[in-house]
Amino acid sequence: MKPSKQVVKDTIYDIRTTTYGGYFDYAAGTPLSPMALKAMQPFLTDQFYNPSALYIAAQEVKKALEDARGSVAKILGAKPSEIIFTAGGTEADNLAIQGVMNKYPDKNCIVSSIEHEAILEAAKPYQHKLAPVKSDGRIDLVALEKLIDEDTVLISIMQANNEIGTVEPLAEIAKIVKHSREQRKQSGNSLPLYLHTDAAQAPNYLQVLVNTLGVDLMSLNAGKIYGPKETGALFIKTGVQLEPLIRGGGQERGYRSGTPNVANIVGFSAALTESQEMREEENQRLLGLRSKAYDFISKEIPSAILNGHKSLRLPNNLHLTFPGADNERLMMELDEKGFMVATGSACSASSDDPSHVLSAIGLRDEQARSSIRISMGRDTTEASLFELLKQIQQLTK
Amino acid sequence: MKPSKQVVKDTIYDIRTTTYGGYFDYAAGTPLSPMALKAMQPFLTDQFYNPSALYIAAQEVKKALEDARGSVAKILGAKPSEIIFTAGGTEADNLAIQGVMNKYPDKNCIVSSIEHEAILEAAKPYQHKLAPVKSDGRIDLVALEKLIDEDTVLISIMQANNEIGTVEPLAEIAKIVKHSREQRKQSGNSLPLYLHTDAAQAPNYLQVLVNTLGVDLMSLNAGKIYGPKETGALFIKTGVQLEPLIRGGGQERGYRSGTPNVANIVGFSAALTESQEMREEENQRLLGLRSKAYDFISKEIPSAILNGHKSLRLPNNLHLTFPGADNERLMMELDEKGFMVATGSACSASSDDPSHVLSAIGLRDEQARSSIRISMGRDTTEASLFELLKQIQQLTK
Repeated sequence: MKPSKQVVKDTIYDIRTTTYGGYFDYAAGTPLSPMALKAMQPFLTDQFYNPSALYIAAQEVKKALEDARGSVAKILGAKPSEIIFTAGGTEADNLAIQGVMNKYPDKNCIVSSIEHEAILEAAKPYQHKLAPVKSDGRIDLVALEKLIDEDTVLISIMQANNEIGTVEPLAEIAKIVKHSREQRKQSGNSLPLYLHTDAAQAPNYLQVLVNTLGVDLMSLNAGKIYGPKETGALFIKTGVQLEPLIRGGGQERGYRSGTPNVANIVGFSAALTESQEMREEENQRLLGLRSKAYDFISKEIPSAILNGHKSLRLPNNLHLTFPGADNERLMMELDEKGFMVATGSACSASSDDPSHVLSAIGLRDEQARSSIRISMGRDTTEASLFELLKQIQQLTK
Repeated sequence: MKPSKQVVKDTIYDIRTTTYGGYFDYAAGTPLSPMALKAMQPFLTDQFYNPSALYIAAQEVKKALEDARGSVAKILGAKPSEIIFTAGGTEADNLAIQGVMNKYPDKNCIVSSIEHEAILEAAKPYQHKLAPVKSDGRIDLVALEKLIDEDTVLISIMQANNEIGTVEPLAEIAKIVKHSREQRKQSGNSLPLYLHTDAAQAPNYLQVLVNTLGVDLMSLNAGKIYGPKETGALFIKTGVQLEPLIRGGGQERGYRSGTPNVANIVGFSAALTESQEMREEENQRLLGLRSKAYDFISKEIPSAILNGHKSLRLPNNLHLTFPGADNERLMMELDEKGFMVATGSACSASSDDPSHVLSAIGLRDEQARSSIRISMGRDTTEASLFELLKQIQQLTK
């Protein structure tokens, strides 16, 4: 039985017709890369087969799934068997935290006080400690080391913060973890100590090589790197013990059951690959833009305060306090002018509480309520950035 | 700042160019409906915004999300607030089982012995009992009633079985549940007793009105009803108490955190709506085809045995034992001829164990290993069905 040709006229797609010059909320969500969407397309149409089925057409879908796994693994410097695809970054974070803590339910974990809610809320039902950060958002390494006790099984520190952009000293944290492990070995404590990082915001701008970073678990999120939403992965280093979160047919080596969305996974892989190809150039371009923005702000809006670390931060992030301004009002006024910025992380935008991240770096509530996040991306130009800054200058006068 | 027009030439899509006449594994996966894909398209391109953000463009995405929730709710006869979107049917099943059992960890649940692995594996870590089925795959109601004890908090019985197609007597089960609740009330036992159904295979062919069925929780799976994969929903009746499975930013009323995939949710809603519009006609058409298939088989392959209930089954399902045949070999030989059928459910296809469903209805291993599932769908024609049956007749001679 041969497939017969049929043109379904209803599915002639529109194509992406706009650029997003006024969009400055890339940390909340990125447009889907045309290349990623193109990679997804066959799996949204002809190659719809369940990859667990045994006929050849399904095995071809399975092959695309495994090719995507191989590509993601390669970028992380990991083995394909160490990559588990999940439905999003939040799910990956939950699999890491809940997965380890359900394996060791009477032990404790340490998470930084500026983690994403996906980590903080996942850790809440378990014994957990919050690692403090300094006023620039960097982990207090001395404090972190003191928090580790003989029952600590997991430490989770994000690679870069989603609100203030601060990049965390993961390699140094990994050294502390290594040292603790050695001490345990000497004292005969066989409990593992795992290091997890939420790298959701990282791959566009930072190296994500798991061995260089020294992590045992790493969460990725396609929806922040120009891939499809609700798609992600968890790197699980060989030997790490954790329980599945979603059980069933045993897909993804039993760690994430359910028919996988191969279209999204292939799109994620394409987006991650593209992000690595563009990384250096985008880094330089955005660093240049940000430097010019710093100059403009210090000259034209001198009362503005930059939150987070001045240089050890994601190049696309500008988090600013405008003393006296009402950030919600500012956000809405900018929206009317065609500029989209954030008052907090999108995930907690609907909450009225001031950001836990800004509290953790020492901002008072009133300062937090005068702060906005500007996050740049591929469609950001010098012209659009300066139009935004001039509007902010006007509106905060 | 106005969006500027830009044509991204790389994203000129191919369109679905084939029909799937040789495909007889719709229970494992359905092609994405062109209408659903069309509905998804804006959210894969221009409307990429995070629906939790506060600017107008994001709120429009949020509105599309809530419209989809309203449409799904209406089809179920539920309130929009009772619909939680999940990343797939397996996740919805896990949220139901784990969610209730984590709320009542010292209580027990009852699941049928022919549930999908998503239910069976989710229930395993908790106190659970297996409700037996009769040889036609229908729940043994007398046995079920006896299994309910004062600590039973949840009963999960699928609406229709994914392997043998048998439709379960949910309304009668709901009566038993109601009776048990009344007894509890009289005896002063305040523990709730919830009825959950996995309706993954149902909406194409069966009514899914939650009140008519009498269920408190219902799982849906877009990937089996011509919608996108890894997309689903859990109906949670107002008042039902359960814990979230994936924690974080508090999306989906806190039951499923993570940035939602609005494209997939909108596609799911469109697919579910379309399935209801096509339901009666497809039912009649496939019942007609199946009846002709029965006639052909009883005349031309008289040794074949139909598994499951003869009439109380999904109209698209034919599950047959061909005594003496090796089902894997038969499946592969049919694949070579361009026909795709299943030897078990796709989710357990990679396992070597014979199906737990076939064991539960009393088939011996050798009978299970001589059985195949034929599941029809929208592209199935009388011609393609009879080509398949004639091939099977040849191959099992």
